Amino acid sequence: MSPSLQKIESIDHISSDQHQERDDVLVIARALAQRLAQTAVERDHAGGHAATEREWIRNSGLLTLSVPKEFGGQGASWETINHVVRILAQVDSSLAHVFGFHHLQVAGLSLYGNAQQQRRLLTATVEKQLFWGNALNPLDKRTVAARLEDGYVLNGVKSFSSGSVGSDWLTISAWDEVTQSPLIAVIPSKQPGIQIQSDWDAFGQKQTDSGNVHFNQVFLPDDLVLQPPAKKPTAQATVRSQIAQLIMTNLYLGIGLGAFEAARTYTKEQAKPWFSSGVERSSDDLFIQRRYAELWLLLKPAIALADQAGRELQQVFEKGALITAEDRGSLAISVAEAKCLAHRAGIEISTQLFDITGARSTSEKFGFDRFWRNVRVHTLHDPIDYKLRDLGRYLLDGTVPEPTPYS
Amino acid sequence: MSPSLQKIESIDHISSDQHQERDDVLVIARALAQRLAQTAVERDHAGGHAATEREWIRNSGLLTLSVPKEFGGQGASWETINHVVRILAQVDSSLAHVFGFHHLQVAGLSLYGNAQQQRRLLTATVEKQLFWGNALNPLDKRTVAARLEDGYVLNGVKSFSSGSVGSDWLTISAWDEVTQSPLIAVIPSKQPGIQIQSDWDAFGQKQTDSGNVHFNQVFLPDDLVLQPPAKKPTAQATVRSQIAQLIMTNLYLGIGLGAFEAARTYTKEQAKPWFSSGVERSSDDLFIQRRYAELWLLLKPAIALADQAGRELQQVFEKGALITAEDRGSLAISVAEAKCLAHRAGIEISTQLFDITGARSTSEKFGFDRFWRNVRVHTLHDPIDYKLRDLGRYLLDGTVPEPTPYS
Amino acid sequence: MSPSLQKIESIDHISSDQHQERDDVLVIARALAQRLAQTAVERDHAGGHAATEREWIRNSGLLTLSVPKEFGGQGASWETINHVVRILAQVDSSLAHVFGFHHLQVAGLSLYGNAQQQRRLLTATVEKQLFWGNALNPLDKRTVAARLEDGYVLNGVKSFSSGSVGSDWLTISAWDEVTQSPLIAVIPSKQPGIQIQSDWDAFGQKQTDSGNVHFNQVFLPDDLVLQPPAKKPTAQATVRSQIAQLIMTNLYLGIGLGAFEAARTYTKEQAKPWFSSGVERSSDDLFIQRRYAELWLLLKPAIALADQAGRELQQVFEKGALITAEDRGSLAISVAEAKCLAHRAGIEISTQLFDITGARSTSEKFGFDRFWRNVRVHTLHDPIDYKLRDLGRYLLDGTVPEPTPYS
Amino acid sequence: MSPSLQKIESIDHISSDQHQERDDVLVIARALAQRLAQTAVERDHAGGHAATEREWIRNSGLLTLSVPKEFGGQGASWETINHVVRILAQVDSSLAHVFGFHHLQVAGLSLYGNAQQQRRLLTATVEKQLFWGNALNPLDKRTVAARLEDGYVLNGVKSFSSGSVGSDWLTISAWDEVTQSPLIAVIPSKQPGIQIQSDWDAFGQKQTDSGNVHFNQVFLPDDLVLQPPAKKPTAQATVRSQIAQLIMTNLYLGIGLGAFEAARTYTKEQAKPWFSSGVERSSDDLFIQRRYAELWLLLKPAIALADQAGRELQQVFEKGALITAEDRGSLAISVAEAKCLAHRAGIEISTQLFDITGARSTSEKFGFDRFWRNVRVHTLHDPIDYKLRDLGRYLLDGTVPEPTPYS
Repeated sequence: MSPSLQKIESIDHISSDQHQERDDVLVIARALAQRLAQTAVERDHAGGHAATEREWIRNSGLLTLSVPKEFGGQGASWETINHVVRILAQVDSSLAHVFGFHHLQVAGLSLYGNAQQQRRLLTATVEKQLFWGNALNPLDKRTVAARLEDGYVLNGVKSFSSGSVGSDWLTISAWDEVTQSPLIAVIPSKQPGIQIQSDWDAFGQKQTDSGNVHFNQVFLPDDLVLQPPAKKPTAQATVRSQIAQLIMTNLYLGIGLGAFEAARTYTKEQAKPWFSSGVERSSDDLFIQRRYAELWLLLKPAIALADQAGRELQQVFEKGALITAEDRGSLAISVAEAKCLAHRAGIEISTQLFDITGARSTSEKFGFDRFWRNVRVHTLHDPIDYKLRDLGRYLLDGTVPEPTPYS
Repeated sequence: MSPSLQKIESIDHISSDQHQERDDVLVIARALAQRLAQTAVERDHAGGHAATEREWIRNSGLLTLSVPKEFGGQGASWETINHVVRILAQVDSSLAHVFGFHHLQVAGLSLYGNAQQQRRLLTATVEKQLFWGNALNPLDKRTVAARLEDGYVLNGVKSFSSGSVGSDWLTISAWDEVTQSPLIAVIPSKQPGIQIQSDWDAFGQKQTDSGNVHFNQVFLPDDLVLQPPAKKPTAQATVRSQIAQLIMTNLYLGIGLGAFEAARTYTKEQAKPWFSSGVERSSDDLFIQRRYAELWLLLKPAIALADQAGRELQQVFEKGALITAEDRGSLAISVAEAKCLAHRAGIEISTQLFDITGARSTSEKFGFDRFWRNVRVHTLHDPIDYKLRDLGRYLLDGTVPEPTPYS
Repeated sequence: MSPSLQKIESIDHISSDQHQERDDVLVIARALAQRLAQTAVERDHAGGHAATEREWIRNSGLLTLSVPKEFGGQGASWETINHVVRILAQVDSSLAHVFGFHHLQVAGLSLYGNAQQQRRLLTATVEKQLFWGNALNPLDKRTVAARLEDGYVLNGVKSFSSGSVGSDWLTISAWDEVTQSPLIAVIPSKQPGIQIQSDWDAFGQKQTDSGNVHFNQVFLPDDLVLQPPAKKPTAQATVRSQIAQLIMTNLYLGIGLGAFEAARTYTKEQAKPWFSSGVERSSDDLFIQRRYAELWLLLKPAIALADQAGRELQQVFEKGALITAEDRGSLAISVAEAKCLAHRAGIEISTQLFDITGARSTSEKFGFDRFWRNVRVHTLHDPIDYKLRDLGRYLLDGTVPEPTPYS
Repeated sequence: MSPSLQKIESIDHISSDQHQERDDVLVIARALAQRLAQTAVERDHAGGHAATEREWIRNSGLLTLSVPKEFGGQGASWETINHVVRILAQVDSSLAHVFGFHHLQVAGLSLYGNAQQQRRLLTATVEKQLFWGNALNPLDKRTVAARLEDGYVLNGVKSFSSGSVGSDWLTISAWDEVTQSPLIAVIPSKQPGIQIQSDWDAFGQKQTDSGNVHFNQVFLPDDLVLQPPAKKPTAQATVRSQIAQLIMTNLYLGIGLGAFEAARTYTKEQAKPWFSSGVERSSDDLFIQRRYAELWLLLKPAIALADQAGRELQQVFEKGALITAEDRGSLAISVAEAKCLAHRAGIEISTQLFDITGARSTSEKFGFDRFWRNVRVHTLHDPIDYKLRDLGRYLLDGTVPEPTPYS
C-alpha cells in the first residue's frame, strides 16, 4: 500500500468507529480509492466520462451494497454505504458522487416501487451488475409524459442528471399535463430516443456525468412507473431526498478529509518552515499547529453528526411502509444539521489548507485546488441559508421541514 | 413542573441519548435544577456562599454518584455524572461547578489513594454525606509541607480553591522543599489552622466558593497522603486532570443550553417582532430563525463530542491501575476537542442570544447576562490557545499532550 | 497625568488624524476622561445617577461644542464631537452616551426648529450651560398631546429616555390622536407634571439616566413645538436619526478602544506567561501577539469608516435646508457600514480580551466585564440584522434606507 | 461601453475618492480593463504568456506612471498607481500583477539606484516603453555572482520571477560568496545566457509570467549594480518590499471587487429566487441581501485602509534619502493592516459569492472560479500568520517589523 493511502486511512481511523474497521467492505473501498487516487488529479483536471474507472467500481462489487440480501445484494447499512462514499470522496469526489447516487436510485426502488418491481429490478441490479443514474427532478417540468393505453410517451429534457452518462438504468421524473403532477419511473438508459449529453461544464465535480438527458418519443411501460401522477407521496417515499442529502453530506466530509490529509502529508514531507518562524520543521510552527486544530474541529464534529444521522436513517429506512411523517421530519433535522456542518467544514478546509501549505503547494502537479472546486460546486446543490431556516423553524416551533426534493 | 423547566428539559431531550432519559438520576437532577432555578438569578447577582442550596444538593443524594457501589455509592458512569453537571449548569453554573468538583475529589481517591484510604474515605463520603472541595494545584508552591516523623506540617495558602467554603474535606497539594516536588493529600476542612476565605471576587461563577485557603501549622498525618513527594504520578493518577477538564466542558455546555433555552422561551413568550420585519411573531423572522440555527450548530456538535469523550473516560477509568499513557493521551485529545467546542459554544451563545432577544431582555430582572459572565470566567481556567496547540501537535505528529494539571 | 491615561491616549493617537491632536477640545476631553476614570469602575457597578460627574462635564465647557458660533457656541464639527464621545466612552460609556445625546438634542434644534427657536434655545444652552436629555421616540404612542388654543397638554409616558434624569431640557415626541401623527417639541424638564424616574435597570450602560418620563397634564406652548403633527419631516429633519446612529457608533468604538487598552496595559504590567508557553513575558507569546492583531483589525477599520462617515455627516449637516433625500440616504449607508463594524468590534474585543488577559483579570476590582456589559446593552438599540438588510438592499438596487428613528 | 464594465465602475465609484474620478489615468485604465475583460476568462483558463495583451498595456502609456516627470514620466502618486492595479485586477489579476510589478521595478531604480542610473534607465523606460520584470529574491542564494574586474558573472536560477517572460529588463539579486551577501542589479532580459522559462504552473495567476530565470555566464557590468554586496540597505531601499506588499494588497482588493461585481450582475440579470423563498426576485431575498452586506463589509474597510496606506507610502516615498527607519516601520504597519484585510476580503468574497449565485453559476462559461483561484494563489506570497504576528508585536511593544523582502 502506498504511504499516501495509509495516511488517508490513518486519519480515517481517527474518525470512524472501530468495529467498522474490520469490515471487509471498507477494505475493498480503500483498495478502490487507492486505485482511483493514481489518476485522480489528471482526471479531475480533464473532466469527461471515466469509463474505465466506473468499470473498476462495478467490478469491486460495491454496487450491490444497498440491495437487500433477499435479492442477492449485501444489505449494507446506510452508515456503511456513506462511509464508503466518504472513503472514495477523499480521493475522487466525482466518482464518489456517481457511486453514492447509484445507491440512491437503488433505494428509490425500495421506497417507491411495488414488490414485483423490487424483485425484478433489484435482482437484475445484482445479476447484471447494473449501474444506475439519476434523471429525477420533480420540480423540473420540461420532460412531459403523455398517457398511452399501457404506459406513457416521454418527450423533453432533464438537466443535472448525475451519473446518467454511462448508466444502465435511470430513475426519471416526468410531468403529466393532465393531472399537473409528476410521475416517477425507471427506464433503461440505452435505447432509441434517449440521448444523454456529456455536457456538464461546471468547474468542479467534473466527472460526475451530470449532463442533460433528452427524451424523444420514448415509451415508458406502466410496469416501470414507480409512482403514477397525482399520487401523493407516502412518508416512506419522501425519505429519498434525505438519503440524497446524507450522501452529499458524506461527500463533503470525504473532500474535507482528503484535503486535510493532503495538507498533513505535505506539511510533514515537503513543507519548509517560514524563514522568520524560528523553528526547523513546519510541523513545529505554533501557527501551523493551531491551524490544524481549527480545521480538525470543523471536521470531527461534522463526522460525528453525519454518523449519528446515518444511524437514524438506517432505523427509519428499516421501518419501510410504517415510516411516519414524524420519523421523516426528525431525520430531516438530523441530516440538515450534519449537512450544514459538512458544507462548512469542506469549504473552509479546502480554502485554508493553503495557508498551511503555502505558495509552492499551488502547483498544478499537486492538484490541491480540486478539493475547493469540487466541494464548492457540490455544496450549491441547495442553499445552506434555507437549510438553516428550516432548522431554525424547527428549533423555535418544532415544525419539521416540508418534504421536497431538497429538504 | 414549571413551564420554564419543562422547556429546559425538552431541549435537553434533543441532545441526550434516550436511554438516559429513563434514568432516575436525571429525574432527581432536573427536580434539583428546578428548585435552584427559583433563586438562581438573585444568588448569581449577590454572590457569596449558598449554604442552603448546598444542603439541597447534599440531600438530593447525588453526592454519592461517583462513589463505587462496593463502598455504598451509586457507581454512576462519568457520562451520567457529567449529564447531571450539565442539567444543573443550565440554571446555576456556580453550584454545578461545586457539584462537579466534589466528584472530582471523590475520583481522586480512586485514582491516587490506596485500598485502605479508598475504603475509609469513600465509605465515609456515603455515610456522612460528605461534601468535598478542592485545594489542589501542584504548580502553586506557596503551601509548603515540612516533614515530621509521622506526617507533615502544612503552612501557606492556596488560591482558586473551588468549593472549599462549606466543604467537609479538601483535596490539597503542598510543596515539599526537600524533594522539590508536590505531595497530594486529603484533609478535613474544618479544623484549627485551616482558614477558608470567602474572598472569590470574579464577575462570574460567584457562588463557586473558590476562595483562598490558608494553612497555619496544620498537621497532615501520613495516612491522608494520597501521593507522597517525589513520586512520579502513574498514568492512572494523571487521569484526574482530564476528569476536571471534562466537568468544565459539560459546565460550559450547560450554560450554553441554559442560555439557548432562555432565549427560546423569551422569543416565544415575550419578544416583539422588529417594526420593519413584516412578520407578526418574532419566531417568524427569517433572521431570528437563522440565528437559532447557528447557535444550535455550535451546541449540538459540542454535546455530541462531550458525550463521546464521557464514554471514553468511563472506559479508561474502569481500567484502573492498568491505564496506560496511550489511553490517557488519547482521552486527553478527545476531551480537548470537546472542551474547545464547548468553550466557543458557551461564549458565542451567551453573547449572541441578545441579538435575538433585543434591548428589553437586558433588564436585570431576567438575569440573562449571567450566562456570559459565568462562562466567560470559567472558560479562562486554562487558555484555549494552548489546548489548540496540543491538539495540533497531536494531529501532526501523534504526540499526546503532556500530563499536567491543565492538559 | 496617570500612566494609564497616557496609554489610552497613545492608542488613540494611532487611530486619529494628526491635525485633531492639536485641538484644544481633545485636550479637555482627555482631561475629563482621566477624571471620570478614577471612579468609573465603581460607578459602573453601582449604577444610578452620576450627578457630580455630570457637573464636571457641564463645567468642562464641552456642552456647547455643537452650538453654532453665531449663538455663542463652539461650532465644532461632528467629527470632533464624535471624537470626544469616543474619548469619554473609553473610560465611561454611560456618561459618554449622556454627553453624546445632549448634542443630539442640540442638533435637533438646528434640524427641526425655526430661526426664533434656534436663537432663543441655543443661546440659552450656552448662557445657562443647559444639559439636554431625550424623550423622543415617534414610534411610541403612549404620550398623547391634546390640542389647546395656544399649545397642547401632554399626558403619558416615554421609556428609554436617555439622559433624562438630571436634564434641564428635554426633546420629546407626543402622539396627536386627531391627525394620528407625532409632534416633536422641547420642554423644560423640571416642572410640575413631569416626573422622571431613575428606573433604568439594564445590566449595562447603568448611568445613562435612561428612565421613564411621565407627563401628567403638562402644558406645551406652541413656541416650543419644533414640528407640529401631520407635518411630513423634511430630509433635513430626518438627518437626526443618523446623528444618533453615528454617536452610538463612536460610543461602541470608544468601548472597544477602552477594552483594547485595558487589555494591553494588563498584558504589559500584570500578566504572567502561560506555564507551557516557553516565553518569559506574556507579550512575547505568539498567540497573544496574534490576538492583539486580530482585535486591532476589527477596531482600526471601524474607526476609519466612522471618521469617514463623520466627515460626510458634517458636509450634509452644513447644507441645512438644502439637504436632499439622496444626501440623507447616502449618509445613512455610510453610517450603517460604520455602525455594523463598530458593533462587532465592540462585542468581540470586550469578550475576547479575556482570552488574552486570563483568569485573574476577572476580579471585580478591575471591572473589565463592564466593557462587554455596556457594549452588549447599547448595541441592541436596533437590530444589526436589519441594518445589514438595509445595506444589502442598497448594494443590490441602490435603494437607500427608509428614514425612520432607527435607520 | 459594455454594461458589464459600467457596473464594475459603478461599484468602483462607491469606493474611491471623487477627485480621482476625474483623473484621466483612471479613464484609460478602465478602457484597458474593458478590453482585457473580453478575453479574460479564456486566457485565465489557458494560462501562458499574454503577449498581445501586454502590448495593449504598453501602448496604453500606463507603464510610465511611476517614472518621475523629470525623466519624462507621469510622476503619478502611489495611490493612483495602486488604483489602476485595482481596476485592472477586477477583470484580469494576472496582467494587473505584471503591471504592478513593472512599477515596482521602476520604483527600485529610485530607491536603490544612483543619479546616473536613474537618469539613464528611467529615461529609457519612457523612450523605449520598456516593460520591467522581477528576478529579485535576496533570500534565494541559487544565483551566484562572481567578481570580475569591471563587473560580475552570473550563474544560477531564480524562481517566482513575476513578469519575467516577455520583459525588456529585469531587476535581479545574486549571491556573492565572498561577502556572503546579495547584490541587487538590473539587466536586459533578452541576451545570450539568460533563459526565461514559461514554466509557472500554479492553479491561479496563470498569466503572470512568473517562471524560472536561468543565468549562464551572464556578464553584469558594474554600472548596472544598484546595490553592491555587503552594503547594508538604507531605510529608503527597504521601502521596496512595502511597495510590493501594497501592490499585492490592491490586487487582492481588485479581485474582491471583481468577484463582488460579477455576483451582483449575475444576481440582477440571471439568478432565479430559491423555490421556497417566497420572493420573485433573487434581489429581494433577505438572505441574499444580507450576504451582500457582509461581503461589502469585508471589502470597503479594506479599501479604506489600503487607500490610507497608499497616501502614507506616497509621503514616505517623497522623502527619498531622508526616509528614516521609523517612517519605514510605521508604513510597514499600515501596509500590513491593509494587506491582512484585503487577503481576507479576497478569499471570503471569492468563496462566498457562490452561496449567492448558486449552482448554475459554476459553469465554466462564467469563469467565476478564477477569482478564488487567483486570490488564493497570490495571497500565499507570504503567510498572513506572520503578518499578524508583526502587527501584534507592534501593538504591544511598538516594535516595527524587521525589514525583509516580505515585511
